[in-house]
Amino acid sequence: MSEQQHSLSSSVFDQSHWQILPVDTSNLNNIDEKINNKTKPLGALGQLEDLARQLALIQQSPSQTTSRVETEIEINKPVMLVFAADHGIAANGISIAPSDVTQQMVLNFLNGGAAINCFSTALGWQMKVIDAGMLSPVSDNARKSASNMLIEQPTGQGTADFSKQAAMTQTQAEQALAMGANIAAQHIAQGSNVLAFGEMGIGNTSSASALLSLICGLSPQRTTGKGTGITDEQLGKKIQLIEDALERVNKVHGTKAFTPQTALMEVGGFEIAQIVGAILETAKAGKSILVDGFIVSVAALIAVRIAPRARDYMLFAHCSAEHAHQQVLAQLDARPLLSLGLRLGEGTGAALALPLLQAAASFYNDMATFESAGVTV
Amino acid sequence: MSEQQHSLSSSVFDQSHWQILPVDTSNLNNIDEKINNKTKPLGALGQLEDLARQLALIQQSPSQTTSRVETEIEINKPVMLVFAADHGIAANGISIAPSDVTQQMVLNFLNGGAAINCFSTALGWQMKVIDAGMLSPVSDNARKSASNMLIEQPTGQGTADFSKQAAMTQTQAEQALAMGANIAAQHIAQGSNVLAFGEMGIGNTSSASALLSLICGLSPQRTTGKGTGITDEQLGKKIQLIEDALERVNKVHGTKAFTPQTALMEVGGFEIAQIVGAILETAKAGKSILVDGFIVSVAALIAVRIAPRARDYMLFAHCSAEHAHQQVLAQLDARPLLSLGLRLGEGTGAALALPLLQAAASFYNDMATFESAGVTV
Repeated sequence: MSEQQHSLSSSVFDQSHWQILPVDTSNLNNIDEKINNKTKPLGALGQLEDLARQLALIQQSPSQTTSRVETEIEINKPVMLVFAADHGIAANGISIAPSDVTQQMVLNFLNGGAAINCFSTALGWQMKVIDAGMLSPVSDNARKSASNMLIEQPTGQGTADFSKQAAMTQTQAEQALAMGANIAAQHIAQGSNVLAFGEMGIGNTSSASALLSLICGLSPQRTTGKGTGITDEQLGKKIQLIEDALERVNKVHGTKAFTPQTALMEVGGFEIAQIVGAILETAKAGKSILVDGFIVSVAALIAVRIAPRARDYMLFAHCSAEHAHQQVLAQLDARPLLSLGLRLGEGTGAALALPLLQAAASFYNDMATFESAGVTV
Repeated sequence: MSEQQHSLSSSVFDQSHWQILPVDTSNLNNIDEKINNKTKPLGALGQLEDLARQLALIQQSPSQTTSRVETEIEINKPVMLVFAADHGIAANGISIAPSDVTQQMVLNFLNGGAAINCFSTALGWQMKVIDAGMLSPVSDNARKSASNMLIEQPTGQGTADFSKQAAMTQTQAEQALAMGANIAAQHIAQGSNVLAFGEMGIGNTSSASALLSLICGLSPQRTTGKGTGITDEQLGKKIQLIEDALERVNKVHGTKAFTPQTALMEVGGFEIAQIVGAILETAKAGKSILVDGFIVSVAALIAVRIAPRARDYMLFAHCSAEHAHQQVLAQLDARPLLSLGLRLGEGTGAALALPLLQAAASFYNDMATFESAGVTV
């Protein structure tokens, strides 16, 4: 291992690498006063008030890269970064589709035909697709016609089958975090202050379930579900493969609690690891993270285990139909905005929640106070 | 009673007056096939699929006023009609504010300062405010400066205190429905195909609770809550007043099931009655009704009791923090899209749900099929 790699190794999984500042809660009284003086009964806007409070806290936090501290909430250039990668575990037939479909769906993204394209266009997201480690990169033709939307930074060409061996090397896990962070940093530099992350990768709910089991010490029965829609038989096999993986990992590392680094290396995915890095970078820059469903929430949990203060910058978009998502949300003490029974991934849940952020900003910024409106409640 | 009034009387509370056609479910197979061939696992978009299905059914229904039957979902000129009126029951101090605040809030609407203004602007609603029966009309100055937003068609100047006497005359109840229908018809003629209704009226949760008790034979304990935020003592008094009203109404009409007409006349409100008419007219025209919280849902329930087919055109935006709202939703067999703990009224819940309709339309219209995208699931 070179000196450079070692330096990288000692940092990206270390809280101190990220230098994430907590939000400045000394502003909380001012923010609450502003919300409470609006022409509405106290608390009558429910979760939208919590959302406005958190957005205001984030945007008045000292980690803002702008020198000016805003007293209004701004939603600038929201960007949806969809990370795609393949998973060796998928060769066991525990997904609704073979790994080929990862690339097919990426081409569908690049052609504007997927659900996340439709939602992004309808609701105002800029959308990017990142090849974080697909088995086969897209063709030259597809690359040419979609140069503005596609970012290619594969950490590998699909992970190894984690039921039999480590999904990736330690170096790959480190590189993936750095690569994800880099993409987030680029979009923040371009003015985005709300970032969401989506994922595409046949087999990636298996990886997310295994990660959740390892990180939280939960049995695969509790962390594993039907993903986008497998059969009962496939579910049984999926659970068995994750049990095999846990047994394998226990043999290598013992039964001690697993670090985020170990967990990602042993059972992670390239897209999940890149999302962890992107989340940490966004928190470091003091920008808002709109967290999508089960898989992205597992990435968020790993990010929080690396750097707990990252939690301050997370807004939770929706509760997925994948049962284990509720356990991840509980671990993060998160109450999502939407619960629409989605189980698609791609970032679709996060995409749908953006208008609620815009609505929260609108009432926080523009609603009259009792005094200004002459309302005598 | 004049002949004209009698003719009116025999019609607006009569199902046959509205001539509402059911949606044409013979299109359902085509619609489902279109949804199921999109590049996503079956059902993976959860409630958004139900929403797209219902929007498509509505827009392909034979009651469309356009000659062309659309196979795509269009969301055209969504309009938020906020009906304001006063309630005699409010004189008993069972609201968080005196009746003066109805007019103050209407002025706040006209000045663009209320939550519903912010949400309408942020999310793309045209907003209108209807004086459906305020104690005091707005001033000439306010009228001049807000001529585009204000519609004045009061059915009276506040209702009578329904704990002591009928809230309105039978003629007023009839007129209110016709007036509400008229406003909806105007906006439909201007091209709106999604209509939502909001309300402002100090005391109007008391009226809505009393209506629910009368219509469904439920005790006031089950239908009455804290509205926008009254105290326990006020809640006790509110329940007592509604019990007084039920006793009074039972003496007049006997304990038989109450018709929508009797209920509105005895314990209704002018804004609620106008909303009932607006809902029925929208259903008659085959347009979509995005139903807001507790009070508007009670109006929707009354509309369905008058003309059951109106239900086909109703989409339910949110579940209010007002506990009895769940009972109204159950009566309507409705599953709302959002549950954000709102208890403000004004149409705010409906306003927030519009982007979900737009997202449903976007995937239904624009998402690729497995065949077109070359995805081999």
